[in-house]
Amino acid sequence: MKIYDWPTGPYPARVRIALAEKNLLSGVEFVPVNLWKGEQRKADFLAKNYSGTLPVLELEDGTCLAECTAITVYLDALVGEPTLTGRTPLEKGVIHMMTKRAEIEMLDAISVYFHNATPGLGPDVERDQNREWGLRQRDRALRGMHYFDAVLRKQPFIAGDAFSMADIAVIGGFIFASAVKLPVPQECEALLA
Amino acid sequence: MKIYDWPTGPYPARVRIALAEKNLLSGVEFVPVNLWKGEQRKADFLAKNYSGTLPVLELEDGTCLAECTAITVYLDALVGEPTLTGRTPLEKGVIHMMTKRAEIEMLDAISVYFHNATPGLGPDVERDQNREWGLRQRDRALRGMHYFDAVLRKQPFIAGDAFSMADIAVIGGFIFASAVKLPVPQECEALLA
Ligand SMILES: N[C@@H](CCC(=O)N[C@@H](CS)C(=O)NCC(=O)O)C(=O)O
Ligand SMILES: N[C@@H](CCC(=O)N[C@@H](CS)C(=O)NCC(=O)O)C(=O)O
Repeated sequence: MKIYDWPTGPYPARVRIALAEKNLLSGVEFVPVNLWKGEQRKADFLAKNYSGTLPVLELEDGTCLAECTAITVYLDALVGEPTLTGRTPLEKGVIHMMTKRAEIEMLDAISVYFHNATPGLGPDVERDQNREWGLRQRDRALRGMHYFDAVLRKQPFIAGDAFSMADIAVIGGFIFASAVKLPVPQECEALLA
Repeated sequence: MKIYDWPTGPYPARVRIALAEKNLLSGVEFVPVNLWKGEQRKADFLAKNYSGTLPVLELEDGTCLAECTAITVYLDALVGEPTLTGRTPLEKGVIHMMTKRAEIEMLDAISVYFHNATPGLGPDVERDQNREWGLRQRDRALRGMHYFDAVLRKQPFIAGDAFSMADIAVIGGFIFASAVKLPVPQECEALLA
């Protein structure tokens, strides 16, 4: 397996964590794509992932899988233990809901903030910033951190009693928050712990 | 099962289609939530879904599942046939990728356009519109339609040879496009067919 990668990126980190949990890291070749040069927007990369984002998992036969959630679902179905996407119908549903919520309310919100209300990937790549929208998403992410903090005050993991894809998505949010210097509010004690 | 619902909404339609495919419609009570009055932003609804969106599936014991993808995954695991989220690891991965792509590049983009660059749910609900961002998402959705058209010129369904959750997400995009009078470009013949 090959992973098109940005070594410090928060989304690729989600897949790295999933690979590590599944004990699959050693079988993977990581191929860096330079985001600061906008390589992700070039035609040959867009042919691998129409949305122009990393990570992308490429299989031996050339099949490409983009989107962290989809890649995690694939890896989880490939190798049995530990389960990252649930066993029962309800576990699966809750894990998918909380993963999506971690994206909408934290990780993706920080990404939009980064690309629109900070210098982002630099003037050559960020040609069309929308500062107001970016700042609104920053505020959404800060609210999201309080929400996930409240979740973790009631249960040990984001989707219940076990570590899952949803925790990995929140960790991705942390990594992005720290990269863009958006500190997790001090009062979010459960989240920080 | 109860579904908090907006009868003409494109997202609730995704779950209605999944329920119909699974032959589960008759066991569901639909509870309308009035979006035009902003009922989805009131505290009692936010307790069911922090993100304040429909649909939400509520189980007998009060557990709430939000997010169309998560609800579909749950229903698909509950009842065997027909499979909407894949059988093999690769099928699962591709279906999740294409579903997410249908959201990012079409359905969610149209939603952001609707809420930000049209009157949306009306002045009482849409208090903070960002027209420029909304128009950019409209253009993204139009590009997305061309992309999905190209996909359907190569294969019968969005994720390959079989109908899946990804087709349902694209259909949701169609429903939303038609509701906001954003016509699918004539040249997207495979998509229109
Ligand atoms: N929805 C995607 C988002 C991935 C994403 O945004 N990745 C970042 C790198 S950490 C990226 O490629 N950004 C480049 C860009 O937006 O131009 C996923 O879950 O994989
Ligand atoms: N990511 C959600 C989106 C659902 C969504 O946006 N639903 C619309 C109704 S069709 C909604 O509730 N809009 C109300 C609002 O945004 O205030 C999902 O997949 O379920």
